[in-house]
Order: sequence, then structure tokens, then C-alpha cells
Amino acid sequence: MIERLCVFGVGLIGGSLAKDLRSRGLVTHIIGCSRQRAHLERARELGIIDSYEQDPARAVKGADMVVLAVPLGAMAEVMRAMRSGLDEHAVMTDVGSAKRSVLAALESVFGEVPGSFVPAHPIAGTEHSGVEAAVDGLFQGKRVILTPVARTRTEATGRVRAMWQAVGAEVLEMDPSHHDEVLAATSHLPHMLAYTLVDMLGTMEERVEMFRYAAGGFRDFTRIASSDPQMWHDICVANRDALVNALDHFQADLGAAVEAIRAGDGKTIKELFTRAKRLRDRYARESDVG
Amino acid sequence: MIERLCVFGVGLIGGSLAKDLRSRGLVTHIIGCSRQRAHLERARELGIIDSYEQDPARAVKGADMVVLAVPLGAMAEVMRAMRSGLDEHAVMTDVGSAKRSVLAALESVFGEVPGSFVPAHPIAGTEHSGVEAAVDGLFQGKRVILTPVARTRTEATGRVRAMWQAVGAEVLEMDPSHHDEVLAATSHLPHMLAYTLVDMLGTMEERVEMFRYAAGGFRDFTRIASSDPQMWHDICVANRDALVNALDHFQADLGAAVEAIRAGDGKTIKELFTRAKRLRDRYARESDVG
Repeated sequence: MIERLCVFGVGLIGGSLAKDLRSRGLVTHIIGCSRQRAHLERARELGIIDSYEQDPARAVKGADMVVLAVPLGAMAEVMRAMRSGLDEHAVMTDVGSAKRSVLAALESVFGEVPGSFVPAHPIAGTEHSGVEAAVDGLFQGKRVILTPVARTRTEATGRVRAMWQAVGAEVLEMDPSHHDEVLAATSHLPHMLAYTLVDMLGTMEERVEMFRYAAGGFRDFTRIASSDPQMWHDICVANRDALVNALDHFQADLGAAVEAIRAGDGKTIKELFTRAKRLRDRYARESDVG
Repeated sequence: MIERLCVFGVGLIGGSLAKDLRSRGLVTHIIGCSRQRAHLERARELGIIDSYEQDPARAVKGADMVVLAVPLGAMAEVMRAMRSGLDEHAVMTDVGSAKRSVLAALESVFGEVPGSFVPAHPIAGTEHSGVEAAVDGLFQGKRVILTPVARTRTEATGRVRAMWQAVGAEVLEMDPSHHDEVLAATSHLPHMLAYTLVDMLGTMEERVEMFRYAAGGFRDFTRIASSDPQMWHDICVANRDALVNALDHFQADLGAAVEAIRAGDGKTIKELFTRAKRLRDRYARESDVG
């Protein structure tokens, strides 16, 4: 049970978490904090938050749970601004898609990673963003990865774990660097590819036709290119090292495939496609999705 | 109205076309032809075809409409094998995803592109294939691109156009080379990227986790990697020149993006993502899809 929840950023993730905690009766008071007063007003109108406060240090006063649901690029600034107002019993967490950068921000602001801060990543985004995108049940059956470090207090990890389990998520723990490498490959790299492809089509002479003749496969493939540019810019910059590694690996693999096509080496291409289809089909079966 | 329709290949496209023509009462008899007797048996059981014949020349006897719905790599062989049985009033068409290679196959088999052959490409595939995947209404609201050449008889083009319009498709005409360039960028290139990404994840040490922690965006992005490897191998080989051009263009653009990330040039990344999101959102709005 959370007495006073302070949510920084009332968008898709922060807003949906607040909604779910409230609808399950797991929180007494929710206070929102954001630089954008209009977002806070709207969140209060929608009943997602009870009150709001634009000064971070005042916002966290008395809060026993603080959730940072702001873009990765804003993390350090929010931490710095809220620091003086934190209650000593407050547990803190975030929802960022890269974890080493959050740990670095904590070190830069607090001198060391506070034992009361549990880095977390709910894998539940969509291409939509903002408070209007907040929905009930967003985390049901989704995975949330916690990346506690040696200093993290077990009790704090337990409370964050309980919060996410209460809204239906499966909670796992992972090493922060490992998290960043896995997510670079499965999430940040695909976003780079989708954004780059759509941008390329936009610069071609046949631009209008490019989109006119695109089929269903294209629609699904490029859906993630409708994601929030600021948020994804922050993720790609924050997870630069792991993302560049994944991109280098991908470029080498793609280069080999291009050479095979150029050389008319159908055997290599068919083997590549066959291996990939087998993996994708198994993934679809195991995750029970199409 | 078609008296006798001969369909080579009774998979997703050929089977769905046969279903729709029959359910609208637009065809009297449908004969299927395939190398795989089991597929033909199944298609007859499902009521998709009335009869079947494994010898191509016998299959086309008396047919006034012949549809080649086989992988691109099998086109020339089917054309060669059916040639002696063709009725002089028969109109022929295909459903291949690349058009210059179909024209080349026609020239190699018939000496020149027959005036009765209308190359066509229904943009209606899914990642599913085979006769079991055939569905009613697959072409409703979808686009079908015809790429007739100077020699193509207007009456033949008219009959193929009428057939596709009758099953709900919007029919357009395009130059064959132009078709191949547009489709290389919007369809063949994305398939290469999806197959390559999934294969890359399968070779990484953290392989199991790669798929375990993949989110909704990954599922959509990689859906096309579940497409039939033989069919896509054929498409990539058949449309090699246009595809290699598109891949070269993409690799250059991706390389520039990687350099920007490596250099910490957030401005370039944010501009790229912003342009792409704007285009993708407009495409989603205009095509009325998410």
C-alpha cells in the first residue's frame, strides 16, 4: 500500500501506472509533477492524479513512493531538483528504457546510488505517448525489469517489485549493463531502423508513391517510427555504447546479405531467411502473439 | 465473367482470388495446377478449386483466364510447360512482387512478351502462406498494380483489371521498372531488414533473452520475418538490381545515423526521428491505419 505517490511525468507510463494503482485501491494520494502545467491539469481532470505541484522538492514532500517517468534526458535534472524535499523513508524508482545512464545520473546528483532507488524498466511502451494515451491494464502480463545494484536496499527493491506485481506485471531482475545490451538489440536498434527507413522513403523522388503503395507489412514494420522523437532521442543517446555495438553488428550482417544478393548467391539468402523465419515463428508461438 | 479459370499455385494469393471470384459468381469452373498434389487435394476439399491437373499444358486447355500465382523463381518453368496447351483467346496474368523478371521470363519462353499477358501485382500479402491461409475478401480495398507494356493488348488489360476490381481491389497501372523500384524500397528492403535483425538476435550469446524481453514494437517490426523464405528469396533474387540500390541507399543513411550517435550528435538524431515520425503519422492518417 502506498500512502502518497509522487509521479514525475504523467504520460503513457506514469499515467497508466497511477490509474492502475488507484483503481486497485493501492494508493491513498497521487501527486503529479511536470514542467508542463497543462499536462498536470489534464491529468487531474481525467482523475489520474489528485493534485499537482510544479516544484520537484515540494512535490516529493511526504511521498513514500517516487516514480520518475520522465524522458531519460531529464532524469538528472529532476533528481537534482527534488533531492532536498525527499523524505528519508521514500523509495524511488524510474521507468527509463536504459539503466546505466540512470545509475550515472544518480551518482552525479547524490554522489552515489542511493540505497532507496530501484532502477526499473517496464517493457510496455507503445508508439503513443502523453497523458491521453494512459490506459487501464497497460502492464497486465508485461515484463518489468529491475536492475538493483549492490547498494540497493532489499526492502526498497521489494516495495517496487510489489508495486509492479500489483498492476499485473511479471517482475525480473537483471544486471544493468546486461539490460542495456539486450534492450539495445531488441528495442533501440529496431527503432533506429524504422526511423531511418521512413526518413529515407521521405527523401526519395517517388516519395508520395512510396507510401501509397506500401502494404500491410510496411505498416507494422514502421509502426515504431511513430514513437515520440524526444523520448527515443534520449534513449539512443543514453544507451549510446550498447546501441552502437548493436548497430555495428547489424550493419556487418546486413552488408553480408547485400553482398550475397549482389553476387546472386541465392543459397545464402534462402538460408538466412529460413533461419530467421524459424526463430520468429518460435518467438510468436512462445509469446502467443501473431 | 470467366468461363474457365486456371490457377497455378493455390496458396494465399491464388487461393483467395479463386475463393472471391467463386463467391461472387464470377467464374464457372476453376482448375488448379501445382507440383504438389497434396495442396491441390486440400484446395479441392476446401472448395477453392473444382478440379486439378498436374500437367501445366493440360491444365490451361480451354481456360480463358490463366493466373500464375507461383513464386517468381518458378514463373519461367511454368510458362514453358503450359505454353503448348494455351488457347488463343486465353488472357494470362501473374501475381509476382517484382515485374521486370516476369517480363524477362516471358521473353525467354515466348520470344517476346505476349500481348495477352498482363503482369500484375496485388499488394495484399501477409506473413502467412499456403492454401490454408486463403481467406475471403483478402483484396477488398487493396491495391493491384498492373504493368502492361507496349505490346500488351488493351482488351487483355481490361479483363485483368475487371477481375481484380470485381474482388474489391483498386487497380492502378505503372511502368514495370518504376514498380520494381518502389516495391524494392517499401517492401523488399523492409523484409531484408526484418530477416537480418531476427537472424542476428538468434546468433547473439543472450539469444534466449533477446526474445524473452522483446516488446510489442519488436513483435510488429519483425512480423514480416515470418514470411515464406522461398517466396522472399525468389523476390530478392528477381528484383536484385532495384533491391541492391535501395539497400545501398539505406546503408548510407543508417551509417550516417550511427556516426551521429557515436559522436553524441543528438541534434541530428532528433531531427531524423522527428522527420520520420511526421511522415509515418501522416501515412497512418491517410491510409487510416494505426
